[in-house]
Amino acid sequence: MESRVAIIGSGNWGSAISKIVGSNTKDSDVFESTVKMWVYEEIIDGKKLTDIINEQHENTKYLPNHKLPDNIVAIPDCVEAAKGADILVFVLPHQFVYRICEELKPVVRRGCHAISLIKGVDFRGKELSLFSEEIERILGIPCAALSGANIAIEVADEQFSEATIACRRIQEEGPIFQALFHAPYFDVRVIGDISGLQVCGALKNVIALGAGFVDGLGLGDNTKAAVLRQGLLEMRLFGKTFFGGVHTETFFESCGVADLITTCSGGRNARVARTFIQTSDSKTMDELERELLNGQKLQGTTTAKEVYQFLQLQKKLDRFPLLVAIYRIVYEVAPPRSIINCLRTRQTFD
Amino acid sequence: MESRVAIIGSGNWGSAISKIVGSNTKDSDVFESTVKMWVYEEIIDGKKLTDIINEQHENTKYLPNHKLPDNIVAIPDCVEAAKGADILVFVLPHQFVYRICEELKPVVRRGCHAISLIKGVDFRGKELSLFSEEIERILGIPCAALSGANIAIEVADEQFSEATIACRRIQEEGPIFQALFHAPYFDVRVIGDISGLQVCGALKNVIALGAGFVDGLGLGDNTKAAVLRQGLLEMRLFGKTFFGGVHTETFFESCGVADLITTCSGGRNARVARTFIQTSDSKTMDELERELLNGQKLQGTTTAKEVYQFLQLQKKLDRFPLLVAIYRIVYEVAPPRSIINCLRTRQTFD
Repeated sequence: MESRVAIIGSGNWGSAISKIVGSNTKDSDVFESTVKMWVYEEIIDGKKLTDIINEQHENTKYLPNHKLPDNIVAIPDCVEAAKGADILVFVLPHQFVYRICEELKPVVRRGCHAISLIKGVDFRGKELSLFSEEIERILGIPCAALSGANIAIEVADEQFSEATIACRRIQEEGPIFQALFHAPYFDVRVIGDISGLQVCGALKNVIALGAGFVDGLGLGDNTKAAVLRQGLLEMRLFGKTFFGGVHTETFFESCGVADLITTCSGGRNARVARTFIQTSDSKTMDELERELLNGQKLQGTTTAKEVYQFLQLQKKLDRFPLLVAIYRIVYEVAPPRSIINCLRTRQTFD
Repeated sequence: MESRVAIIGSGNWGSAISKIVGSNTKDSDVFESTVKMWVYEEIIDGKKLTDIINEQHENTKYLPNHKLPDNIVAIPDCVEAAKGADILVFVLPHQFVYRICEELKPVVRRGCHAISLIKGVDFRGKELSLFSEEIERILGIPCAALSGANIAIEVADEQFSEATIACRRIQEEGPIFQALFHAPYFDVRVIGDISGLQVCGALKNVIALGAGFVDGLGLGDNTKAAVLRQGLLEMRLFGKTFFGGVHTETFFESCGVADLITTCSGGRNARVARTFIQTSDSKTMDELERELLNGQKLQGTTTAKEVYQFLQLQKKLDRFPLLVAIYRIVYEVAPPRSIINCLRTRQTFD
């Protein structure tokens, strides 16, 4: 029997990924062609966004000028969208995860598989959890995760990208997720390290702030590369310290070093951080976020604070000098050049 | 007794590093203050380059507008420069290594230590050797190596950089080399993997050509990150396949991922490769090298050919798809977009 797929979320990344998913389910032997996509209803120029998507096959608000496949059907009610699905693709802002999962709980079928495209890790004081784990816990189904060097607009433009999917049972789930997400311009590799993949997705945004500071200070490529390198090491240390099963190999995947590089050169966290320095700290990061991003959120600043508070409670601040330095530049008026101090190795030989 | 240091070579990188070395030996308890630097004699505006350096303390040809410490003494005769040295710093174009080492052989003292800042690996058909090994073999002394995310002009400008030194006996040699090269703006870490460090230094220039092609094609940050990632993997595979003792950790050092990032964004290999695409292949890479680099050489193209021929003899071309694709674009008129094909994972589940 063909599997039914539903996409929960329809922002910029959700719309870009729906192009691939819709194309892969159309005329497929393994998937039902129609993919229901939950769209948070908004009125755009007097018209419902769901109607616009279903009539024009375009998400004019979040991914303008890109046609979505006509087998993607926008649904304003998330329960309605998810009902009967065999595969649930979660691609929504992380603050909605709990509410939506609670709503979906009664209709999720046993045997359903989920996959999380949500960036971030959930920090609650001393507790730390992955969104894939929260989805698993609430819905009682296995949840994989997808992440990679995937600037959404480039994926929508069908520029070649790699991506990484992590799931527990590679042999069983790997081929299904590959069939759903792989495209000639979206090259998917499947690995087993769900925690490492999501740690990378969360922390890269913080490191990108550091890369933006270096750019803003005019410090050159050597210094910027040092920030990325230290960032990669702290991402790995964070994963290995606080999660089981995190592998060094994960950091060689698209979700690791590649996504870090992309996020530190083209992403919005790096861009706003650069502007923060260039305006000589006359505005806070929060003010710049509002001015520059037109309602979009900077995940890096929120994550920087959550990570800092978590590390403080864990008494591990000294192990993560770059993450701490970035936090202090954003929130404690530390001089931006202080980022260099955290890069010093102080290697001793004894 | 204080150690006497000599620098063999005085190009752009040699001059930049002489700033650090001269500053570290001055008023030192462990090094003699005076550092002799072998300078290949040239006449600049009617004056000898060695005289210019010794009088103006500036290498006006290869590192203009940067003062060298006055304890750096330019010597036109390499034997004279090296005589009596306890530490020999080799920083010269790799084509000179054999001739200079043969000349120095009679005067190198037993107990002398060498360190190679030479980028590259020496390919001779099916044979492959590291320049540090060649120096060891000819001179009969141990040779360490230094590499990292070190664009020379940024180091000369005292922008913060990291660097990696690899040597066999970390406990004994590490502190000496750290004392000689470490500076507040040049942060040195010492590791044991001499082969891995030098493989990175050689192959990064080839990968940078690939990054330049992607830029020239306007392919976006996701694609570029995929090239860097695949490049990092092939660098590691190359090291592990053809050398003993190459560690994954080396690729997390400045000589690994950081140098790759720097070289792929700011270096001349990436720049010329980008122009190669933008001029629609109407000129060869060799022609562009002559036009754009004012006599400097592109190591990436030479290394690409040597690596290809070596892999062909080793019957291992299929394991290194990116290195092969870059070679074919440069030398076999392969379409530049063919670089994307080599990034496809073709993962199967069985």
